[in-house]
Amino acid sequence: MNLRIPGPTPCPPEVLEAVGRQMINHRGPEFAEMLARVDKGVKHVYQTKNDVALLTSGGTGAMEALVVNTLSPGDHVLAVSIGAFGDRLASIAETYGADVVRMKLDWGKGADAAEIDKALAADSKFKAVLVTHNETSTGVCNDLESIAKAVRKHGDILLLVDAVSSLSSVPLPVDKWDLDAVASGCQKGWMVPPGITMVSMSARAWKAYEQSKMPRFYFDVGRARDFAKRGQTPWTPAVSIFYGLDVALGILLKEGLESIYARHERCASLARNGAKSLGLQLFADQRYASNTVTAVKVPEGVDGKELTKVLREEYDTVLGGGQQHLAGKIFRIGHLGYVQEADIEAVTEAVGKALPRLGFSPSRAAAS
Amino acid sequence: MNLRIPGPTPCPPEVLEAVGRQMINHRGPEFAEMLARVDKGVKHVYQTKNDVALLTSGGTGAMEALVVNTLSPGDHVLAVSIGAFGDRLASIAETYGADVVRMKLDWGKGADAAEIDKALAADSKFKAVLVTHNETSTGVCNDLESIAKAVRKHGDILLLVDAVSSLSSVPLPVDKWDLDAVASGCQKGWMVPPGITMVSMSARAWKAYEQSKMPRFYFDVGRARDFAKRGQTPWTPAVSIFYGLDVALGILLKEGLESIYARHERCASLARNGAKSLGLQLFADQRYASNTVTAVKVPEGVDGKELTKVLREEYDTVLGGGQQHLAGKIFRIGHLGYVQEADIEAVTEAVGKALPRLGFSPSRAAAS
Repeated sequence: MNLRIPGPTPCPPEVLEAVGRQMINHRGPEFAEMLARVDKGVKHVYQTKNDVALLTSGGTGAMEALVVNTLSPGDHVLAVSIGAFGDRLASIAETYGADVVRMKLDWGKGADAAEIDKALAADSKFKAVLVTHNETSTGVCNDLESIAKAVRKHGDILLLVDAVSSLSSVPLPVDKWDLDAVASGCQKGWMVPPGITMVSMSARAWKAYEQSKMPRFYFDVGRARDFAKRGQTPWTPAVSIFYGLDVALGILLKEGLESIYARHERCASLARNGAKSLGLQLFADQRYASNTVTAVKVPEGVDGKELTKVLREEYDTVLGGGQQHLAGKIFRIGHLGYVQEADIEAVTEAVGKALPRLGFSPSRAAAS
Repeated sequence: MNLRIPGPTPCPPEVLEAVGRQMINHRGPEFAEMLARVDKGVKHVYQTKNDVALLTSGGTGAMEALVVNTLSPGDHVLAVSIGAFGDRLASIAETYGADVVRMKLDWGKGADAAEIDKALAADSKFKAVLVTHNETSTGVCNDLESIAKAVRKHGDILLLVDAVSSLSSVPLPVDKWDLDAVASGCQKGWMVPPGITMVSMSARAWKAYEQSKMPRFYFDVGRARDFAKRGQTPWTPAVSIFYGLDVALGILLKEGLESIYARHERCASLARNGAKSLGLQLFADQRYASNTVTAVKVPEGVDGKELTKVLREEYDTVLGGGQQHLAGKIFRIGHLGYVQEADIEAVTEAVGKALPRLGFSPSRAAAS
C-alpha cells in the first residue's frame, strides 16, 4: 500500500521492528538511557537548547500543552488561522478561557507577517500569538521566520507554534527564530507510529509557565521537565513508540537535516508538478506551498470521495480527502517522513489512471 | 527478563507482532473496522452497555478524563484516597477547581464503605465520590461493590472510579455495580504496551457531562463518542497500540473473564504465600489484598533499593519499588496481565536467593 496521507506516515522497517519489542520498566535504567538519547536527538532536530517535553498523546495533546502551560484565563491572544488546525488551536485557547482574537484567512492562503505586525501594533494587550507553521488541511506552510520577526518587534509577546506537520521535514530552527513553544508529533516527519508528541519551551515560555493559571495536570510540561532529570516521564509513557522514536532519530541524524529538507523539497516538487502534468490545479497559494503536504483541487464533474475510494481500492494508493467544507473538493498528498521520489511518482501515476474512470481525461486537460 | 512490575506488563508475542505492523489511514475503513472490534471487546471486558471512550494517553490521562468530563469548578466532591493514585485523583480534581474533601486512609488500608456512607449522609452537598479500585502503590484492592452500594443510597451522586490496574484482571461488572465513569489502561491486565486508556460513561455520567463546566479538549469523551460513530477517534490515535489491543482482546475473550480472574487469584496467592514462605511480611491489610499487585515489606536491615537492583542485575527479575515515603521500605510484585504461576514462583525463588546477599536469611526467618 502506498500510504500518502499527511500522517500517520509509513515507518521504516527498523522502526517497526523496534516498536514491536517487549516491555521494560519505564522507571528503570534502560528507559532512562533511552530517554536521554531521545531527548538529545529531538533537541538536535528542533535545533534548540530549550527543554523539550515528550508527551504521550496525539498532536492535539501537544497543541493543548502549548496553551495550558503558558496562558491564563482572560489572556488576550491573537490566533492566526489559515485552516482546520489553526481553528483548532484557537478553539483550545478559548476552551481554557483565553480571550481570543481570531485573524482568520481564507483556506489556501498563507499568513502575512506585516498584518500580524499591524495587529500587534494596534493593540498592546496581546500576550501571545498562536500560529500554525504548516497547515495540514490546506497544504500551506506559513513564513514562520518573518512572522517570528514581526512578533519579536513587540517585546515579550509569546509565540506559540503548532509545527506538528513541519518540524523534522522542513527548516525550523527554533532557537535561531526565537520561538517560545513549539509542538510536533512523531507520526509526521519523524517516521514513527503516533503516540508521542513534543513541546519545546523557551526561557520566555518557562517564565510564562510560572505565572500561568490555566489548569493542567496530564499535559503539565513542568512535571515532564522535572521527571526527565531523573530519566523518567511523569506518567506511564508509550514505551513502544519511544523505542521507535529512538531508532528513527538514528536514521534522521544519519541522513542529516539538510539532506532531509532537500528530499522533502524534491518530493513536494514532484507532487506539485505531477498534479499539474495531469491538468489538475493546486489548492494553495503557491507562494506558501508546503513541502510536506500538497492539496489538489478535484476537477469539476469528478466526485472527490469516489476518487480517493477508487485510488485506495483499485490502485493501492491512500491519499487524504478534504476536511470540513473542502470534503470532496480537494485531495491531499502527504509527502513527509519515510518518503522517496518514487513514492510520489507512483501517486501521480495512480491518480492519472483513476481520473479517466471518473469522467476526467488528464491528457486532454493537460493539453488544453 | 522476568518483568513483574505493576505495569507496563509483559505482552504476548502475538500482541507485539501486531504492535509492529505498518501504519494505515486512521480515517480509513481498516481503522474503522478495527475500532468497532476493539470497542465491542472492551465493553465485554467492562461488562457494560455504556459508551467507553478510547483515548491515546497514559493512565493519568484517563483519570483526568474522569474528572473534567463530569464535574464543574466548585463542585463539592469526596475523594477517597488509600495511596499515591488516590492522592493523584484528588489532586487532579483540585487542579480543575473542584472543592475536594479528602478521606485519606493510611497506606496499606482499604476504604470502609460504611465510612463513605456516613460522610455522604453528613453532607448533602457532595456531587461525586472519587475512588481508586485497586491502589497500585500499596497492593490494596478496595471493596468497590460495597462502596458502590453505599454511594447509591445517596441518590444521583456520581461514582468516578480509577480502575487502571484492576479492570480486566479482577471482577468489575460496571453495569451491575452501577458505576458512573470508570478508567482503565491497556498496559495493565489488558497485556498491551502503554498508550491507550479507556473511560466508560453511564447515563448519569453523560447527564453530568452536559452540565459540566470544567475545560476539556483533548480528553473530551463526548468528541470520542461522536467520532466513534463514524469509525474514528477525534485526534490521531496510537495506531500501533490499537493493533495490539485488538489482538489482546481476542486472547482475553478466548480465555474468558472467569478464567482470567481465577488465574490472577492463583498468581496473587502464590506471590503472597511465596513472600510469607521467605519470612517476609505483606504490607497491605490482607482483607483487601490485591490480586494484581502485592506489596512486600523490606525486612529490617536490608536496603530496599539495593534489593531491587540486585534482583534486576543478578537475577533478571524486575520488581517495583516503593513510592514516595515507602521508597526502599517495600517492593512490589506485579502479577497481572500476561502472567502464569511459574512467573511468580520464579520471583519468589529470585527474592529468596537475593536476600541472603543483603544480610537477611529467609530460611531462618521463616523458621522463627
